[in-house]
Amino acid sequence: MYRSHTCGELRESDINTKVTLAGWVQKTRDKGFVVWVDLRDRYGLTQLVFDEDRTSSKLLEQARHLGREFVVQVEGEVIERTSKNPKIPTGSIEVLVEKLTVLNESITPPFTIENDTDGGEDLRMRYRYLDIRRNPVKNNLIFRSKVTMEVRKYLSDNGFIEVETPYLIKSTPEGARDFVVPSRMNEGQFYALPQSPQTFKQLLMVGGMDKYFQIVKCFRDEDLRADRQPEFTQIDCEMSFVEQEDILDVFEGLTKHLLKEIKGVEISAFPRITYDDAMRIYGNDKPDIRFGMEFAELNAIAQHKDFQVFNSSELVVAIAVPGAAGYSRKEIDALIDWVRRPQVGAKGMVYVKCNEDGSYKSSVDKFYDQEDLAKWAEATGAKPGDLICVLSGDKDKTRTQMSALRMEMANRLGLRKPDEFAPLWVVDFPLLELDEETGNYHAMHHPFTSPKPGQLELLETDPGAVRANAYDLVLNGNEIGGGSIRIHDKEVQATMFKHLGFTPEEAREQFGFLMDAFQYGAPPHGGIAFGLDRLVAILGGQETIRDFIAFPKNNSGRDVMIDAPAPIDQEQLDELNLKLNKPS
Amino acid sequence: MYRSHTCGELRESDINTKVTLAGWVQKTRDKGFVVWVDLRDRYGLTQLVFDEDRTSSKLLEQARHLGREFVVQVEGEVIERTSKNPKIPTGSIEVLVEKLTVLNESITPPFTIENDTDGGEDLRMRYRYLDIRRNPVKNNLIFRSKVTMEVRKYLSDNGFIEVETPYLIKSTPEGARDFVVPSRMNEGQFYALPQSPQTFKQLLMVGGMDKYFQIVKCFRDEDLRADRQPEFTQIDCEMSFVEQEDILDVFEGLTKHLLKEIKGVEISAFPRITYDDAMRIYGNDKPDIRFGMEFAELNAIAQHKDFQVFNSSELVVAIAVPGAAGYSRKEIDALIDWVRRPQVGAKGMVYVKCNEDGSYKSSVDKFYDQEDLAKWAEATGAKPGDLICVLSGDKDKTRTQMSALRMEMANRLGLRKPDEFAPLWVVDFPLLELDEETGNYHAMHHPFTSPKPGQLELLETDPGAVRANAYDLVLNGNEIGGGSIRIHDKEVQATMFKHLGFTPEEAREQFGFLMDAFQYGAPPHGGIAFGLDRLVAILGGQETIRDFIAFPKNNSGRDVMIDAPAPIDQEQLDELNLKLNKPS
Repeated sequence: MYRSHTCGELRESDINTKVTLAGWVQKTRDKGFVVWVDLRDRYGLTQLVFDEDRTSSKLLEQARHLGREFVVQVEGEVIERTSKNPKIPTGSIEVLVEKLTVLNESITPPFTIENDTDGGEDLRMRYRYLDIRRNPVKNNLIFRSKVTMEVRKYLSDNGFIEVETPYLIKSTPEGARDFVVPSRMNEGQFYALPQSPQTFKQLLMVGGMDKYFQIVKCFRDEDLRADRQPEFTQIDCEMSFVEQEDILDVFEGLTKHLLKEIKGVEISAFPRITYDDAMRIYGNDKPDIRFGMEFAELNAIAQHKDFQVFNSSELVVAIAVPGAAGYSRKEIDALIDWVRRPQVGAKGMVYVKCNEDGSYKSSVDKFYDQEDLAKWAEATGAKPGDLICVLSGDKDKTRTQMSALRMEMANRLGLRKPDEFAPLWVVDFPLLELDEETGNYHAMHHPFTSPKPGQLELLETDPGAVRANAYDLVLNGNEIGGGSIRIHDKEVQATMFKHLGFTPEEAREQFGFLMDAFQYGAPPHGGIAFGLDRLVAILGGQETIRDFIAFPKNNSGRDVMIDAPAPIDQEQLDELNLKLNKPS
Repeated sequence: MYRSHTCGELRESDINTKVTLAGWVQKTRDKGFVVWVDLRDRYGLTQLVFDEDRTSSKLLEQARHLGREFVVQVEGEVIERTSKNPKIPTGSIEVLVEKLTVLNESITPPFTIENDTDGGEDLRMRYRYLDIRRNPVKNNLIFRSKVTMEVRKYLSDNGFIEVETPYLIKSTPEGARDFVVPSRMNEGQFYALPQSPQTFKQLLMVGGMDKYFQIVKCFRDEDLRADRQPEFTQIDCEMSFVEQEDILDVFEGLTKHLLKEIKGVEISAFPRITYDDAMRIYGNDKPDIRFGMEFAELNAIAQHKDFQVFNSSELVVAIAVPGAAGYSRKEIDALIDWVRRPQVGAKGMVYVKCNEDGSYKSSVDKFYDQEDLAKWAEATGAKPGDLICVLSGDKDKTRTQMSALRMEMANRLGLRKPDEFAPLWVVDFPLLELDEETGNYHAMHHPFTSPKPGQLELLETDPGAVRANAYDLVLNGNEIGGGSIRIHDKEVQATMFKHLGFTPEEAREQFGFLMDAFQYGAPPHGGIAFGLDRLVAILGGQETIRDFIAFPKNNSGRDVMIDAPAPIDQEQLDELNLKLNKPS
């Protein structure tokens, strides 16, 4: 036994107890006649004391030479602390050391192991094992473990079976690029790592498994945008004999369970909004509804005046930014510059200041009188003191721009509170999405998503109008889960493949096993998948998923700690029947 | 809502209730005036009844045309069954159907979906989604889910944190072959899939995580022996500030928890045996101790007589097979043939029948008198009616042969009871293992395993004699877990790498990040990993792990259901900067 207690558990009630502790030296304070050492482990900090009166001079000398991050074991007696530290749970006691053993030394760490470290991102990634010693990272990992355990408890208690699906599967051309794995035993052939267990979970439904879940790694070989990882974790679920309502019910329950157990937050029924409404009201299919600033379309009241910019626009849309009427000319100009940045892409912005005296001052006073502007205020719900921002142009683009502006203003005003949780369902997604470049439609969710009842015929005439039994769970402006009711009829599935541009041969080659399976009595089924990394980050009140992953990769897909990927031996390549086109 | 109840829950108390059920047609019995249909889902079977008196003739006709595995929904009333079936929980009731909807049809399945199916292994693998509908497979998967949930509960309750380690890591030459994953973004470089999260869990200990676990997929590109899978699941654990005793304690606790919760079996302290004793007494480092037949070494009492076979042998070893003295001459001859098979490899076998009258009859009566044989009986613990089997020769080989014979006799005598559980710890494993072919030593467990205290010097003089702080948990003749106390001192680790034949440069290239980490205060630590597939199979009272894996691969590493691995497009190869040496 290396220790009788952890560094986080001793209290006043332990005074006079002989204890053995082990941990890392956080800090040493040498006051000459007395040396204090903060000893740290996963569970907390305990102050050790060595003093001239009660400790041998040899021991005091030993303590004096302890370096930061040395691993030590101490035996001693718990005593009352003269100057208590109410900030830490062990702050009322200290341990008077009688024996000190250095278990391992440490060279000076490349950054300080403190809550606020002096280490930059790159350095901390390279020495991730030291970064994990820091409370913020350590606590994030513990938090993640707690969330996954609660997910498992809830789903198990609701009759779900966790089934492991294979990692070495088959490459499909659909969607993002697969990572592939050359097979040595099957020369010239490759496995693929799953982008999701989609087909396997559907096969489990064909297999009668009824309620399946799995917390599982998935892989996508994409060019990494910020905060994407080539491997990520999914809470993957599927149910049989269900309609959309049943699924929303179960997973709304899961989300409530997590919010309650993990955050102590109780939330009643989640609002639901259709995809079309979300786009109309928030310009976004994952709206943050912790705050208002809902879109008001002003076409009817702002067009047909002399303002040509609006008259020639497909959409004129406005939001009322609360309390921003006081913006100076300079601030307004800066905001207009902001919406004109290429990342946002608006041509300009019209604004109306709603003065406290009930009057309006706008950038288009030449075209609109007070009465006109009062209508805008009414439409947007603007109150005295608010700033109405108006964008116009092409409908889809303008909505996206306004959504960006809405989020920016919410950030500036501090309305996106990390400890406030506003989940909602976005439902009735389009089945297909037009690829502007190729002019082809592809599945918005995936090719197994079922169209709304009675809309199958629309596929022929107006594919973009077909709505799907597809839904996303959105939390604080992030999509944390998405799913659909699947097609369980092989004829409907064949029609879908056709509309997605697969020849029957291609469909057979890629999804033959699924189509075969559907011949043997597939039940009606549907499911959902949550992005665990994102879910945990949001529940943790943070934005970056990387902080919730033990060993994340950087934006080039590299693990800088272990220096992977890396070249492999010629012998390994030969065994795999491979050679490099260009030597590495 | 597709159903109000499952097919497994209706009881007599539900009689007169209107219900909606959904499931698969297991069987239809048409008696003309009445048709019974067994409806099946994950939860059970419910008998549906359609009859001339109470059902419309149209409905009766519909029922008559239901095929096996059709997916149907029925509405009806729960009624009492005239001839009850006590074998199933729903056997007292049936549902008088008022409405029948066919949700999906099925073509005739390639094998019967019954507990005892007519489908062969290959066919069932190809249509695994249908095999999963069968109770034996379905129940195995549910059982597995239950075991993993209990593992997680126990470890969480004991302060362990589940941390996900990466799947895209770096290839190391140690041990079995890695599966590799070419990187598109890092041209000419490869990730490797982990054979285990060994180094990452050690880095987590350096990171202060203290108690880590993970249920995780691991990958080995080995030529597959029977009942090995290229991807398998491990319960991976590591603890800091522990000695061997602490680890055995926690994981003995886990095993007891599982046996109690899953099997209702309570077991007191697990026996412990050293590796050397296990080899001496059972000829095997994973002894099945559900039965006796312990080895007795007869050298002292059987050598130095006139029997040259024994005199020239390094080892003469015997077991007493209970109740086998009655073996006929023919049976004995067959047994001798059995030990001579190449798979066993003995040259011959001496036997002694211990007759009921206390006399002995042996195959070596020419050399040994009754008094000699009585000593053999005493040494082996043979009783009247037992058969003593004696093998001799080279020590290691003879032990292995005798171990095979012991297991064979136990199987023949039905002593390996699937519902009896006899766990034990095998401890003090050799640190190194001699590779007979190359004459080099390699790590028996892995290169991070620590030698027993004070034995480091022995590495120079007698490497094979060094014992390690390594242990296996053995259950019913299977190794289900193994681990060790790790080296936490970078000097000791460097010495180990040297003895394993790594140059300092090779060690640095392969394990540099671990050796770097050990400079910053690595705590004493150790761990264990359980093979989940095997553990679940044994707890389930079965031998083959494949039956407990949802979608297993065959002995060529192929998934015959999805037909993977498979060739990939030229475009994919080009993007990865790869070409095939020989076209596939």
